Amino acid sequence: MTTSLNQLGIVKRNIVRADPAAVAKLSRFGVATIHEAMGRVGLMKPYLRPVYGDAKLCGTAVTILLQPGDNWMMHVAAEQLQPGDIAVAACTTDSEDGFFGDLLATSFMARGAKGLIIDGGVRDVEELERMGFPVFSRAISAKGTIKATLGSVNIPVICAGALVNPGDVVIADRDGVVVVPAAIAGQVADAAEVRENNETHKRQKLAAGVLGLDMYKMREPLATAGLQYID
Amino acid sequence: MTTSLNQLGIVKRNIVRADPAAVAKLSRFGVATIHEAMGRVGLMKPYLRPVYGDAKLCGTAVTILLQPGDNWMMHVAAEQLQPGDIAVAACTTDSEDGFFGDLLATSFMARGAKGLIIDGGVRDVEELERMGFPVFSRAISAKGTIKATLGSVNIPVICAGALVNPGDVVIADRDGVVVVPAAIAGQVADAAEVRENNETHKRQKLAAGVLGLDMYKMREPLATAGLQYID
Amino acid sequence: MTTSLNQLGIVKRNIVRADPAAVAKLSRFGVATIHEAMGRVGLMKPYLRPVYGDAKLCGTAVTILLQPGDNWMMHVAAEQLQPGDIAVAACTTDSEDGFFGDLLATSFMARGAKGLIIDGGVRDVEELERMGFPVFSRAISAKGTIKATLGSVNIPVICAGALVNPGDVVIADRDGVVVVPAAIAGQVADAAEVRENNETHKRQKLAAGVLGLDMYKMREPLATAGLQYID
Amino acid sequence: MTTSLNQLGIVKRNIVRADPAAVAKLSRFGVATIHEAMGRVGLMKPYLRPVYGDAKLCGTAVTILLQPGDNWMMHVAAEQLQPGDIAVAACTTDSEDGFFGDLLATSFMARGAKGLIIDGGVRDVEELERMGFPVFSRAISAKGTIKATLGSVNIPVICAGALVNPGDVVIADRDGVVVVPAAIAGQVADAAEVRENNETHKRQKLAAGVLGLDMYKMREPLATAGLQYID
Amino acid sequence: MTTSLNQLGIVKRNIVRADPAAVAKLSRFGVATIHEAMGRVGLMKPYLRPVYGDAKLCGTAVTILLQPGDNWMMHVAAEQLQPGDIAVAACTTDSEDGFFGDLLATSFMARGAKGLIIDGGVRDVEELERMGFPVFSRAISAKGTIKATLGSVNIPVICAGALVNPGDVVIADRDGVVVVPAAIAGQVADAAEVRENNETHKRQKLAAGVLGLDMYKMREPLATAGLQYID
Amino acid sequence: MTTSLNQLGIVKRNIVRADPAAVAKLSRFGVATIHEAMGRVGLMKPYLRPVYGDAKLCGTAVTILLQPGDNWMMHVAAEQLQPGDIAVAACTTDSEDGFFGDLLATSFMARGAKGLIIDGGVRDVEELERMGFPVFSRAISAKGTIKATLGSVNIPVICAGALVNPGDVVIADRDGVVVVPAAIAGQVADAAEVRENNETHKRQKLAAGVLGLDMYKMREPLATAGLQYID
Repeated sequence: MTTSLNQLGIVKRNIVRADPAAVAKLSRFGVATIHEAMGRVGLMKPYLRPVYGDAKLCGTAVTILLQPGDNWMMHVAAEQLQPGDIAVAACTTDSEDGFFGDLLATSFMARGAKGLIIDGGVRDVEELERMGFPVFSRAISAKGTIKATLGSVNIPVICAGALVNPGDVVIADRDGVVVVPAAIAGQVADAAEVRENNETHKRQKLAAGVLGLDMYKMREPLATAGLQYID
Repeated sequence: MTTSLNQLGIVKRNIVRADPAAVAKLSRFGVATIHEAMGRVGLMKPYLRPVYGDAKLCGTAVTILLQPGDNWMMHVAAEQLQPGDIAVAACTTDSEDGFFGDLLATSFMARGAKGLIIDGGVRDVEELERMGFPVFSRAISAKGTIKATLGSVNIPVICAGALVNPGDVVIADRDGVVVVPAAIAGQVADAAEVRENNETHKRQKLAAGVLGLDMYKMREPLATAGLQYID
Repeated sequence: MTTSLNQLGIVKRNIVRADPAAVAKLSRFGVATIHEAMGRVGLMKPYLRPVYGDAKLCGTAVTILLQPGDNWMMHVAAEQLQPGDIAVAACTTDSEDGFFGDLLATSFMARGAKGLIIDGGVRDVEELERMGFPVFSRAISAKGTIKATLGSVNIPVICAGALVNPGDVVIADRDGVVVVPAAIAGQVADAAEVRENNETHKRQKLAAGVLGLDMYKMREPLATAGLQYID
Repeated sequence: MTTSLNQLGIVKRNIVRADPAAVAKLSRFGVATIHEAMGRVGLMKPYLRPVYGDAKLCGTAVTILLQPGDNWMMHVAAEQLQPGDIAVAACTTDSEDGFFGDLLATSFMARGAKGLIIDGGVRDVEELERMGFPVFSRAISAKGTIKATLGSVNIPVICAGALVNPGDVVIADRDGVVVVPAAIAGQVADAAEVRENNETHKRQKLAAGVLGLDMYKMREPLATAGLQYID
Repeated sequence: MTTSLNQLGIVKRNIVRADPAAVAKLSRFGVATIHEAMGRVGLMKPYLRPVYGDAKLCGTAVTILLQPGDNWMMHVAAEQLQPGDIAVAACTTDSEDGFFGDLLATSFMARGAKGLIIDGGVRDVEELERMGFPVFSRAISAKGTIKATLGSVNIPVICAGALVNPGDVVIADRDGVVVVPAAIAGQVADAAEVRENNETHKRQKLAAGVLGLDMYKMREPLATAGLQYID
Repeated sequence: MTTSLNQLGIVKRNIVRADPAAVAKLSRFGVATIHEAMGRVGLMKPYLRPVYGDAKLCGTAVTILLQPGDNWMMHVAAEQLQPGDIAVAACTTDSEDGFFGDLLATSFMARGAKGLIIDGGVRDVEELERMGFPVFSRAISAKGTIKATLGSVNIPVICAGALVNPGDVVIADRDGVVVVPAAIAGQVADAAEVRENNETHKRQKLAAGVLGLDMYKMREPLATAGLQYID
């Protein structure tokens, strides 16, 4: 392998993106469903929030490793973005500075990128909403950054507690952000579909007044565990 | 008393809910007003926030004590919910996992529940908003939970720093969440009404340019306390 | 100077407000732009957030130093507010109580104040939005406060990590809050204008697909720093 | 009952303290053991920490409800302290001010109190250590407090997430703080003893190299749950 | 004045240090006493903690404004340090990186500096303790920093919420950190002495069993405020 | 590869541990030095702290993925521990419960393990110190855990923000925790040695009063960057 985690000063140009059909299929499902379909793994930490209300994302990751207070690699990453990509930016240390604003968003959009996931801060939130460029971040901050130190682009990064390899599928909505490894994207999309179909049926029963206690047959295991009903 | 605080493995079926007339009257007032009317007590910690913008709640508490990462008791609680109830969920330890989503919301709505207050995380936020099921939580997280360990339903719980007994009135709006003990619900509603009427009058005077300094007669106590005006 | 930082029990009546023309000019620019135009200084900490969605502010500071859980000085400050002012409230210690609500907002609006910046909590958020009185705070809390201890009005205060002198210009939007010393308000407004014009040009180039790497001539310094492209 | 949770302006003089024999027996066990012996309930939040290294406490609670930035009730509480008591101080809102220092500690020691648990800040830490007066707090802060607003003494309080009734047993060590209701103190002490004895035996087996997998017979349930060993 | 708050790229060489006699006198008192003697102002936030147990400091401030993840100005500051000085480092944004370790400590000690107060992280904690160089910081972190961007030395800075001018007296102990403006250092030292003497007398009375209720004559104001004793 | 990140329900028995000579050599250096020698990567987040004062660790990782509030996998991991190993425990979600205490420590020591790194809570801190079993954790909590849900042992995990593969070298001291991939352990140890030797020389010069400004030849780049000295 030519790249390793957190190696600095590297830009990988040729990355293997997840199968477009799998990405398209995954885009139909929410983050909670996909996370369950993968076996309850792959979530980023819940401190990542959309910077404006109705942001949603599904695309392939171009990864960025930033240095604290420095957004030089954002510009390097722009050149590596292709239509359908999502920029996923981690930082070598916790930093809430405003690494990204409307100028970079303009550039990323011109490259066809769909949005940004960043374990750091962003600014120009009003313009980002007006442009329709979705961003999920750990903070909103007007604090400017410098361009002085190398990070990397398209190496594996840990973003908000989750490992992201370049080319992985990243899905984000109001429930959070989940990463699907490129190699299993299709399989996870299928499992999400099964789960979703299954949930429609359950939803109907629950709406009709059937209790989860009965639908999931929980009464016996609860009694075995020792649950006591008193009056 | 057959139940005590935090006792595990218990479901109390018959609880005494606050007087419906008192609940109806309390529903006309905001959380800040009610909290003041009770003598500035009864508030949950301000980290509880509505998961969507205009959520509001007023109803009687069905309490739930969860275990970390485990939502088994949510299903047990569903059966105890009656029209007008609000589910109030505490956890034996701090946990931000997604204990609740649209399936449980469907079931709770089918039971007539008005909403959920939870000292933990929830998911399916977009669906919750679409369904119109208000939730106030400490976090939004897609992280799934298991069903393995007993907690309790309808015992006294401490939720976000406030004691809640089953049947108490819970009121929530954009200012936070307040608990009114069932026994004093009517008395608090009356006091809230007095305070609200009183505030209308004050508001008019302040809007007309009268200063609080004069309306509340603060100039003398401020001078006594030693306040100095300089130029 | 007759007032100093953190001195308690003082109200300064005659303060020198920034030049109205400079304030008007600054009101045309966002917080991020102004912060950059000042040389990347003057920002308050990013934990200050608008209590409702589209709040924006630009005006001259009337400063308030509060005691924890005590909003007495808010009433004293009301008398010092003039049209175009923004109340800027700090506290002698971290406190998230609800120091401010719709009654005080009514009074502040009657005085011509434009809004409030507070390193503390506020309540009556729904009413504040309805009234159109913008507030940026560190918390939303219904917790009531007392009126027992002297703070000060119109002394220099440190609010959310930034020094604010009475009369300084305060600008707030969804990106945060920035303070411009009164003495340099015009100069900063001019620099912001230059920056804004410059950004328009850059935005057009980036939208046309020119890369920041080329527009900012970064390729050579990146290579000098050792950046390696691999396939 | 003449007192209720969070009622302000009340001092209850005659409280029923837990049986001294039960307190003495509980003092032999650690917080983790007692918490387990009670069925994993009764813990305060882990943010409470000893202000100096080897602090340990076991005694009966005299409860105090403070107002933010105000330690008036500490002086009221001093008169209610008896030999063997532990002062347990909650606050009506989160506050890290220094509510307690060496003068109050001198007074509390003169009354025979053993220590302090406080969901707030304290100061004079070096003197407290020199005096040998153990304190568990959420913060250390030199910030002084005022004496202006009534709280209460010996009403039920919620301290760091746990309900404490006056007279309950409070045990604190480096693992945290646990509350044992007075009515079950003897029973919990007995259960703790059984558990401790049981642990001694387990400790010997584990030290001899027996695996928990075998000692607790976990291999079969793990296999049933689906655990796979690979090479 | 030729320097102003937060101005970047400046080193002021000639600063006016507080009167050595006042510094010497202040060194006899603790942080809590000095903070009270100044009228309860001047404290840094309580998140600043000593990196090893028994650290104590009293000296004159040489101020440093750092950039995030960059310790270049530490080296610039070393040259400005004189015997008896304390380095006081702020950062333009929140950063917990390790800006300081044993090499810089060696250099600072060689210049006669007494210690460091830093609103950021430090490393080499074991060596710092062995060398006897006291540090109060917001974090301990091994994360290395770069030397790329200008900050300033000996300009007014805001460190952990407190304004520090070069030459001010800084006192730190286990209770926290307090700043005494150079101009009032002697006056504050005198007030601290009076307070300390006064406390000795109070301590003796309290140790003898006199209650604060009686010593401070609180019974009447408590009754006036409405305090009720019940049995 | 037979294992992938976060796969649940798996125990890998045969792992490749780092070269013992490299581990031995790394044990001579501190965390800050090793982190620098690797190019400033590999650190865990600074919230991990030793649970008692002088804890230090260097060994090979046996990795554990826990579920929230569940320590079943700790027992599974015990069997995989060999002399010289360090248990490195991550959790599928943030949890501060007490996953580990003196019984497990007894078992781990009997297996020859040197210590524990855990992104969660532990208890029995006093006993751990007495036993001399070093632990670095995010919290201390007496809260007990259950044994109900499968995690994994010896799969790659993300612990406190750092990727750890089974067999990697983990070094921990008062400055934090760093992970060295097994494949480069020898190379990093050599680089650490060079750095350490180099630092000894620098330390002597700095102790003799040579300024970093001169030793590192910073005066010219500082002037070029625009640093101004004023009087």
